Amino acid sequence: MDLGITDRVRPLIEAVRQMVEDEIAPLDAEFHAEVGKHPSGDRFQHTPRQLEILDGLKAKARERGLWNFWLTDSDKGFGLSTVEYAYLAEEMGKVGIAAEVFNCNAPDTGNMEVLERYGVQWMKDRWLARLLEGEIRSAYVMTEPDIASSDAAQLAFEAKRDGDDFVLNGEKWWISGAGDPRCGLYILMACTDPGAAKHQRHTMFVMDPDLPGIEVLRPMQVFGHDDAPHGHMHIRFTDVRVPVSHIVLGEGRGFEVAQGRLGPGRIHHCMRAIGQAEKALELMSRRALSREAFGKRIAELGANFDILANARMEIEQARLLCLKAAWMMDTAGVREAQPWISQIKVVAPLMALRVIDEAMQMHGAQGISQDVPLANMWTHVRTLRLADGPDAVHRRQVARAELRKYTNQGT
Amino acid sequence: MDLGITDRVRPLIEAVRQMVEDEIAPLDAEFHAEVGKHPSGDRFQHTPRQLEILDGLKAKARERGLWNFWLTDSDKGFGLSTVEYAYLAEEMGKVGIAAEVFNCNAPDTGNMEVLERYGVQWMKDRWLARLLEGEIRSAYVMTEPDIASSDAAQLAFEAKRDGDDFVLNGEKWWISGAGDPRCGLYILMACTDPGAAKHQRHTMFVMDPDLPGIEVLRPMQVFGHDDAPHGHMHIRFTDVRVPVSHIVLGEGRGFEVAQGRLGPGRIHHCMRAIGQAEKALELMSRRALSREAFGKRIAELGANFDILANARMEIEQARLLCLKAAWMMDTAGVREAQPWISQIKVVAPLMALRVIDEAMQMHGAQGISQDVPLANMWTHVRTLRLADGPDAVHRRQVARAELRKYTNQGT
Amino acid sequence: MDLGITDRVRPLIEAVRQMVEDEIAPLDAEFHAEVGKHPSGDRFQHTPRQLEILDGLKAKARERGLWNFWLTDSDKGFGLSTVEYAYLAEEMGKVGIAAEVFNCNAPDTGNMEVLERYGVQWMKDRWLARLLEGEIRSAYVMTEPDIASSDAAQLAFEAKRDGDDFVLNGEKWWISGAGDPRCGLYILMACTDPGAAKHQRHTMFVMDPDLPGIEVLRPMQVFGHDDAPHGHMHIRFTDVRVPVSHIVLGEGRGFEVAQGRLGPGRIHHCMRAIGQAEKALELMSRRALSREAFGKRIAELGANFDILANARMEIEQARLLCLKAAWMMDTAGVREAQPWISQIKVVAPLMALRVIDEAMQMHGAQGISQDVPLANMWTHVRTLRLADGPDAVHRRQVARAELRKYTNQGT
Amino acid sequence: MDLGITDRVRPLIEAVRQMVEDEIAPLDAEFHAEVGKHPSGDRFQHTPRQLEILDGLKAKARERGLWNFWLTDSDKGFGLSTVEYAYLAEEMGKVGIAAEVFNCNAPDTGNMEVLERYGVQWMKDRWLARLLEGEIRSAYVMTEPDIASSDAAQLAFEAKRDGDDFVLNGEKWWISGAGDPRCGLYILMACTDPGAAKHQRHTMFVMDPDLPGIEVLRPMQVFGHDDAPHGHMHIRFTDVRVPVSHIVLGEGRGFEVAQGRLGPGRIHHCMRAIGQAEKALELMSRRALSREAFGKRIAELGANFDILANARMEIEQARLLCLKAAWMMDTAGVREAQPWISQIKVVAPLMALRVIDEAMQMHGAQGISQDVPLANMWTHVRTLRLADGPDAVHRRQVARAELRKYTNQGT
Repeated sequence: MDLGITDRVRPLIEAVRQMVEDEIAPLDAEFHAEVGKHPSGDRFQHTPRQLEILDGLKAKARERGLWNFWLTDSDKGFGLSTVEYAYLAEEMGKVGIAAEVFNCNAPDTGNMEVLERYGVQWMKDRWLARLLEGEIRSAYVMTEPDIASSDAAQLAFEAKRDGDDFVLNGEKWWISGAGDPRCGLYILMACTDPGAAKHQRHTMFVMDPDLPGIEVLRPMQVFGHDDAPHGHMHIRFTDVRVPVSHIVLGEGRGFEVAQGRLGPGRIHHCMRAIGQAEKALELMSRRALSREAFGKRIAELGANFDILANARMEIEQARLLCLKAAWMMDTAGVREAQPWISQIKVVAPLMALRVIDEAMQMHGAQGISQDVPLANMWTHVRTLRLADGPDAVHRRQVARAELRKYTNQGT
Repeated sequence: MDLGITDRVRPLIEAVRQMVEDEIAPLDAEFHAEVGKHPSGDRFQHTPRQLEILDGLKAKARERGLWNFWLTDSDKGFGLSTVEYAYLAEEMGKVGIAAEVFNCNAPDTGNMEVLERYGVQWMKDRWLARLLEGEIRSAYVMTEPDIASSDAAQLAFEAKRDGDDFVLNGEKWWISGAGDPRCGLYILMACTDPGAAKHQRHTMFVMDPDLPGIEVLRPMQVFGHDDAPHGHMHIRFTDVRVPVSHIVLGEGRGFEVAQGRLGPGRIHHCMRAIGQAEKALELMSRRALSREAFGKRIAELGANFDILANARMEIEQARLLCLKAAWMMDTAGVREAQPWISQIKVVAPLMALRVIDEAMQMHGAQGISQDVPLANMWTHVRTLRLADGPDAVHRRQVARAELRKYTNQGT
Repeated sequence: MDLGITDRVRPLIEAVRQMVEDEIAPLDAEFHAEVGKHPSGDRFQHTPRQLEILDGLKAKARERGLWNFWLTDSDKGFGLSTVEYAYLAEEMGKVGIAAEVFNCNAPDTGNMEVLERYGVQWMKDRWLARLLEGEIRSAYVMTEPDIASSDAAQLAFEAKRDGDDFVLNGEKWWISGAGDPRCGLYILMACTDPGAAKHQRHTMFVMDPDLPGIEVLRPMQVFGHDDAPHGHMHIRFTDVRVPVSHIVLGEGRGFEVAQGRLGPGRIHHCMRAIGQAEKALELMSRRALSREAFGKRIAELGANFDILANARMEIEQARLLCLKAAWMMDTAGVREAQPWISQIKVVAPLMALRVIDEAMQMHGAQGISQDVPLANMWTHVRTLRLADGPDAVHRRQVARAELRKYTNQGT
Repeated sequence: MDLGITDRVRPLIEAVRQMVEDEIAPLDAEFHAEVGKHPSGDRFQHTPRQLEILDGLKAKARERGLWNFWLTDSDKGFGLSTVEYAYLAEEMGKVGIAAEVFNCNAPDTGNMEVLERYGVQWMKDRWLARLLEGEIRSAYVMTEPDIASSDAAQLAFEAKRDGDDFVLNGEKWWISGAGDPRCGLYILMACTDPGAAKHQRHTMFVMDPDLPGIEVLRPMQVFGHDDAPHGHMHIRFTDVRVPVSHIVLGEGRGFEVAQGRLGPGRIHHCMRAIGQAEKALELMSRRALSREAFGKRIAELGANFDILANARMEIEQARLLCLKAAWMMDTAGVREAQPWISQIKVVAPLMALRVIDEAMQMHGAQGISQDVPLANMWTHVRTLRLADGPDAVHRRQVARAELRKYTNQGT
């Protein structure tokens, strides 16, 4: 069970870390400061400077061969293992736009995996190629407003067969990335047979985002932020026609596609969260050494030694657990890895939130201000306790796996 | 030790609760939606509709005699005890603009107390009267950017005597309410004698906010929000001249004023936080009963009973502790009440954050969105762990009070 | 809602506190050191010295009028309110045998209440009078080994009518006080009609402990301790005949009696636990001031200020909540007080365990040794998270009470 | 960083697990039931049956080659790495006497390491050989009653040079294993030069336990238990003469020996604690599936899924962290591994205590009784938060290591 940094990935980690710190971080601030400055006033249009920043960095990354790392076990990418990629994800998590610079950002990586694994050739030609080049972006259209989407069998968005098409009606929300004007693909899960068995009701479709009848209602806000221009959009579909040929894998096999898609993505999310926790601990340590009160460095005041130590201990444990989940994915497959992925899905965001919260507190009021990135990190990581299933659902999976060791009856 | 609702205050609570729910809550949303819509584009200018909302509600509140409750033990207000007022603060805490509607919002109440208690007649005539009428707003100008302001003896903002004036130089930040164009008073703490004993170095001044040399640099953001038009401003003072007559209580007595000011305000903050926690528990309970997943109401899923029960138990305990601190203030005075106030300053915000966080989680992604008030409540309450001293400083006070029981040497 | 110390109870508290500290505490240690020294080797026989200690202290307590405080709202005792008594329970909780010295120990107080409230005259003459005098002790015989007794409807111990008798068969365990050779009364809950509605299946009986067919199998151990001579006994009943006249309140009304019995007892338990937490905080504070390491008093090391402060804040909150539950009992009755009692039943023991645990830790290895009372306090309080219903059952009650506010359908 | 089970150690783990479960566990209960049954009444004498049990099991273990695994990186044992041994320690931790059966118990392993690494030939001949054979046991004599021994520089037990001897005077306590009549070696740290630099004041001695002037005062109790016949003894030394030749490594080099000794031992302790947590989770899972209340298996009640899931997640994380600390020990040496060992020293016992506590709670009152091993496990693991340095000291080490990354000045 080698969870370490291999010789193969070590120079990549180093190259990514340096580019993130030296080149991406400074422009990330500028990128976000540009939001809303498009002449139209539309926060979901990139300004020329934003595109310049993104495209410039992406070009550099490609030039250096730092591109599409996420394609694990594939002859298209570096052939990295999930464990190896996890270390890269951690570095990319430290700065907001970094993952996109290396063409490794959610939800595109998951969507590319769907096409790579389950797509037919024309789908690959039409969308995958351009995604791999970073020309377009994409969205994964699953969550619905009126039901608890964590119980995915409840998803009710309707797709009805009509001749060679399906006709789609309903609302989806929290569609991350659908705000980006470069978004060129929706992968959408719809209910095609409400009367079928629980995991055969749904079908996965691919489609262009500009079909007639698709209407973006509003951006959902996260702690008051619209995360423009990426965005988490609330979308209405009215009689949207999608040809039968746009089904992925087969009618009624939507769950199968969704399951296959989610494993690696959750690991990436968690490792990026760990990257943010590391960053927060660094900021907290520097603050503890540089600030004084009551005649001492604040490192030496109150419970601060304990706070720093707990942060270190929690980060190490969460990272090792993520690496083990990645190793399970590499060696035993997504199904066996599932309870491990549920474990990290609970552990990593909660840990990162605690560490970031302590880091904010140790900075005093500055900690929640625009002068340090901590508040932004906190609200971002907070979404991870809900995305891809809330903690409670994952704890339930972990418990069921545990109890199965002692019973054949299931629970 | 009567911590209950007295007959005198009961009808006031009922009146406030109804007005908050029925009249203020609906307009609160509209008020905040107007932010940034001033023709000038200046987020720190009220739109006509905002002023209409505020003034209309304030007029109604005055008409009904629901005004200036906070003036405890005074012949100017209702003569309520702090315990009685605490129950009102809880109700007012449930909706953003409610406290101002009743002329009971921070930092004005604390500032009015300073004038009432330590101000001379001309100060009262010039500022207190208009504050009591709700004509102007005010700011308390204490925190500084370059030092740990929780160790207030470090405050270095300089006021140097020059003839009949003091000349002020330096920066202050997190000056809440200083963004409001109606802000008509600064109460400012400056270092007038850096060489004096620790608690005699500072002096408290009153002044108009539009003196030459005062420059608002920027609004500080709280989790990315500028809280316009109230605002938490970063302000630079350059050779600002303030007459000697504008000193409160006396040169070198700034600490004395600051101490007297902070007790009641912290109780109000905490009770408002408890009001928000109650609101969050209500939202969480309704959600638990109305949402279904896996064939059950989510109330009956996972740890949700325990989560609801823990929220109830934590709220009750925090409220009783706040009431006891208020009772100490009423019966033993601010000095004796100090360790109790430190206790609630730690307990109440932490409790409210936990309850609001669980409520967010039980709402799924909606919980952190603009569709429910929870995310906004969370970021607001998070500031309370830093305002008026971070948790660590208050825990230190509580511990020292505890140890003093066993030693005369202090610690 | 007066939760304070009344003038009436203040001198009683003072008298109890002094007697506990000055007279009972020193003999408590000696009492426990005598366990197992009876010539027979039987740990459940008092040595002459043990009886001398107990009887001597009880005589003093009676002489001073410090006796049977627990009889709240009664003309037999002091007529104290539950709130007033709660303060006395806290003092008595600080030393092991103190409650018995004042004839206020569990399970006798609860049993006396049953007789007082539901017993007929001959029962009072035969058992209550002697219990009030402290001549005999008693046991409450409810918990069963083979079922989750927290779901009391499951209790299966059988009592079958046979002529004028009921014939009892089955096992009971964790029967506290049944080890004491002075135990002269069992109050026992048996299933008399398994087919009846859930809360009408059981009947409460009174009986002498020496009936033919009653066999004490063994003492149950608590963290390896048999708590001799009090004991928590495992008892087998084989064809034990009890006359119909020994039924309390009526056949099928066992639940009614059990409910009425448990309210005050839980408050007493919780206040005694709070007394132990206070004692632990005192020991911890003294230790923090007297011990040195790394050149400082340990008070000033690491997180110790925070630990002390958290202990103080948790104790205050738990005490206020207990007092509020007591006040509910006094003013609104046991039914209305029920959710409040469930709250403290969860809160107080957990709080006391945390405080005692920190106190142990701050003492170093001595903290878990025989040289300080902390380890003994911890194991004792740990039982309270199970006695009278485990935490989970009480949290469930609290949550259901909460949800009932928003629904009439129950949950 | 291979943290997995190697092919070399896999069959050993399997053999140990089977022997522990099938052969040692049943006799462990009998062994402990025999305590105190020696004809003399002396709890610190083995009964013949106890010796028969121990010697019988040890003979079997040796016969099967399951002996002295702990000798990592050595040509005397299996040459296992620390990582490999850690997995074995986990299995041995599940049953009380198992570690001794394989000659792998504390404090003997640490003491043997001292002799192996720092001892001269005659010491090895006289003590190490017999320890490796399991003929004698040993004690490590360090902790003192009157000072905070976690600040080891404070250790004041005196050894004064007198001719060719040192003369020892003082008290030591918590000397684990010194109760065992087979104890044939003390390794003792004494202050030989109070005026020297902090880490050069102390010297490590080896000696027979039956020297004139050594007096065992009493067994220290752990939650009321004397852990006979092993024991944690309080010992007084009065003018005990030890020849200069009995110094290990050199005068003033006691700290060096102590540091070298503690690393592996802490890893072993932690892995044994993890073994106990695994056992507790197994018991808890089985209970959750077999017990019913309110019409359901208790697995499905309240927060029990969450409790089981949290236990699994905490165990996995703690185990991985221990394995990483072991790997650091193997690859980077004890000095580099130090902060990692401090991390697990904090993490593993706290985790195990939480898991065992939840397991007790899920068992109801039975959980703290003699009928399940949980209460015994809890009190045992609780000692680990104090042994080899309390949590606070280790957190301090972790924090200092963290801050050193950003400063060269130390903290």
